[in-house]
Amino acid sequence: MFERSKITQACEQFALRLQRTIGDSRVIDDPDILEQYATDKSHCEGVFPHLAVRARNEQEIAAVLRLASEYGVPVVPRGAGTGKSGGAIPFYGGVVLDTTRLKSIVEIDKENLLAVVQPGVITGEFQAQMESEGLFYPPDPNSLESCTLGGNVAHNAGGPRAFKYGVTREYVLGVRAALMGGELISPGKRTVKGVAGYDVTALMVGSEGTLGVFTEITLKLVRTPTELSTLLIPMPSEEAAGMAIAKIVAGGLVPRVLEFMDGVVVDVLRQKGIAGVSKSTHALILAEIDGNSEMHVEREVLQLAELCENSGAEEIFVAKHGGDREKLWAARRVMSDALAETAKHKVSEDIVVPRSEAPRLLAGLKKISKHYGVSVPSYGHAGDGNYHVNVLWDDDGFEPSAVVRDIFELTLSLRGTITGEHGVGLSKKPYLPLEQSANLIGVQQAIKRALDPSGLLNPGKIFTE
Amino acid sequence: MFERSKITQACEQFALRLQRTIGDSRVIDDPDILEQYATDKSHCEGVFPHLAVRARNEQEIAAVLRLASEYGVPVVPRGAGTGKSGGAIPFYGGVVLDTTRLKSIVEIDKENLLAVVQPGVITGEFQAQMESEGLFYPPDPNSLESCTLGGNVAHNAGGPRAFKYGVTREYVLGVRAALMGGELISPGKRTVKGVAGYDVTALMVGSEGTLGVFTEITLKLVRTPTELSTLLIPMPSEEAAGMAIAKIVAGGLVPRVLEFMDGVVVDVLRQKGIAGVSKSTHALILAEIDGNSEMHVEREVLQLAELCENSGAEEIFVAKHGGDREKLWAARRVMSDALAETAKHKVSEDIVVPRSEAPRLLAGLKKISKHYGVSVPSYGHAGDGNYHVNVLWDDDGFEPSAVVRDIFELTLSLRGTITGEHGVGLSKKPYLPLEQSANLIGVQQAIKRALDPSGLLNPGKIFTE
Repeated sequence: MFERSKITQACEQFALRLQRTIGDSRVIDDPDILEQYATDKSHCEGVFPHLAVRARNEQEIAAVLRLASEYGVPVVPRGAGTGKSGGAIPFYGGVVLDTTRLKSIVEIDKENLLAVVQPGVITGEFQAQMESEGLFYPPDPNSLESCTLGGNVAHNAGGPRAFKYGVTREYVLGVRAALMGGELISPGKRTVKGVAGYDVTALMVGSEGTLGVFTEITLKLVRTPTELSTLLIPMPSEEAAGMAIAKIVAGGLVPRVLEFMDGVVVDVLRQKGIAGVSKSTHALILAEIDGNSEMHVEREVLQLAELCENSGAEEIFVAKHGGDREKLWAARRVMSDALAETAKHKVSEDIVVPRSEAPRLLAGLKKISKHYGVSVPSYGHAGDGNYHVNVLWDDDGFEPSAVVRDIFELTLSLRGTITGEHGVGLSKKPYLPLEQSANLIGVQQAIKRALDPSGLLNPGKIFTE
Repeated sequence: MFERSKITQACEQFALRLQRTIGDSRVIDDPDILEQYATDKSHCEGVFPHLAVRARNEQEIAAVLRLASEYGVPVVPRGAGTGKSGGAIPFYGGVVLDTTRLKSIVEIDKENLLAVVQPGVITGEFQAQMESEGLFYPPDPNSLESCTLGGNVAHNAGGPRAFKYGVTREYVLGVRAALMGGELISPGKRTVKGVAGYDVTALMVGSEGTLGVFTEITLKLVRTPTELSTLLIPMPSEEAAGMAIAKIVAGGLVPRVLEFMDGVVVDVLRQKGIAGVSKSTHALILAEIDGNSEMHVEREVLQLAELCENSGAEEIFVAKHGGDREKLWAARRVMSDALAETAKHKVSEDIVVPRSEAPRLLAGLKKISKHYGVSVPSYGHAGDGNYHVNVLWDDDGFEPSAVVRDIFELTLSLRGTITGEHGVGLSKKPYLPLEQSANLIGVQQAIKRALDPSGLLNPGKIFTE
């Protein structure tokens, strides 16, 4: 769609104009820095951007979008680059627009339970600040220590707590965004209700930087629950774990976290000497229950424990305080890296199936593993039916795309979705037509053209052209 | 935008083709029926449609949209016609597409807590059916005994329970919709998480029949809470009620219902002899607390009661069972009609302000009432800051638009929104530019053109052209 040579030419003129507009020092062409902007936490291969801008404010963001539009330069918005689907990597070059310098918490409104933030605020830092005010921002993507709220909103990030609290989308009341061309819009509201016009906010959430660049975000908060208990439950088999999880959900319990780790993951954790993983452990459940009544939380902890015992759990570890809770989380925290160490290559998908289809998913994954002779461990947010399915292999010549396609086809045959958290970006765009009809993709592309007629904002993402 | 004579001509040819396609008897031109389709529960004046179709299935809906597109005929989708903003009334004539005949509950999936319904299912009937299965669909617009789920989704309906459970949007996992032209799309998912592509579902929710016509809706359900208590709390003043509500919210209590009725409303209710309204009552709070633990619900009832007593309540009525609960709801149920009886004319707006701004809103409304010499009673979903503000007058020559504009300007000065539940439709379209910038409205119109280039789907709604 875009020729590299034309973009190179456009970028030269664009860079000169931009330097005059926002200052020489703002426009980065240092190849070492540009190299960093050519990768993220996915396995996608992007290309180097021609240049980069670390914007300091909304005016600079708007200026980049206005001039890029004028000169025909692709713009790739970028937060901390922690994405797993290549959303922040240039596909055609152009300019990377880094928003991590916009890191102010603009406003905290305790009475109305909302905060206004700039896109570059680190999620974990925001959460810590809110907690010090007695407030709680639940979405907790795995990368929360380094990812930005702007990136979270662009990808509608999830995390373990989504089972009780929902994903990022549920917490975005409104955004302020610059469109390609530099115009600013402020869809949304500061109230919990509001139905004036189309829900443009919801459209921007999860649009992966292809419709606009956030300059400000209004987030809904809740009050920090006063009580919290963490449970780590070693299970004798995956089936037993599945049964326990089904009983927990069917029993109407809503733990804020309900995580599952399969037998392969447990074997790796056992080798690492992780606490709680014994010889007879063949699956793990990690759960957290919170609330404002100590008695109520304790009762739910007992109920959950009992359901797990009825499904075969022999020992259950419970912790209520910081350090002790962190020990129980150790298994979950080290898992991804520990898995990666077991093989030369790893890809990780983030599929979702209707909760009741989990046993069929796990059985199907075992067949796929056997068929291709690769390890396919999975773990994830069992309460939501959201599993991180990994493919591990050593042979440099092995091409995992057939395995990945089989995993997606299995998922879709169970009426699931190919991505629950990571988004489509570059990594899943060839697979989107497996899930969505040509009509539906056509509608999305028409929306894209409506907001970005030149197609210059994060081009090459989500849709194959 | 559309000339009546041209539409009349187009409709003649369209009617012939449509009769050949879906059968003579399906196409309605009986003026008595068409007259019914020229009104809804708003005070808007629409025009008669040229014809109407009571579709029986998706194929007929798609056929109407395909042929209307071909002949240039405006299409006005319609549920039960209970809307309050004129969304279902023709503005240019054309064909009314009535979807109330599509009234099947297609699927109930208890394990995954979802149901698939056709758009014509009556909300209250759906809720009753779900409750008989131990399931709960929370959104409860006031018209739930007659309104349809299709209409609810088209307007993102709210209701008293939104304070705890959120509005319709939170329960729509996916839709199946026919676009102008007849193409079908199925955005959304059957899982609680999913981020594949843009959130087209969220865009369709609340689009007021201007982007597509729903043929099927996938709704998220929750489990029926086992415990429920209703409280009616007469308060000595509006200020005392406001203080109590602020304390309830600040205390972290989340009753599922938290309604407020002001002094003017109370006076009208007192004249009606409504139970609980005494001489010293000058405001009312109606609250409901639900949950799965009797003890927990009882404790919250006591907490809420205590906060109200601390703010001046002398007597609190509590009920736990059907008939007794209904008695406490009597005030809320009769209120709208009782108010209407007190004057020859009434308009009702549904504004929202950030919760903390409620005292300033009520004070401002009193000033407006005094300035214009009209009664401006208000009641509503105080927990959400969502107030139904009424203007009552007797003089046939009085024009309420200046009052309405002042109410909206007051609302927006408090950083609220002009509509929390009813939508923009015809009634609020002149006021949308008070709330939203030209850029934001432009983006929405661009999205509209992307999905409906001919502008034939529910034309004249939301946007002034």
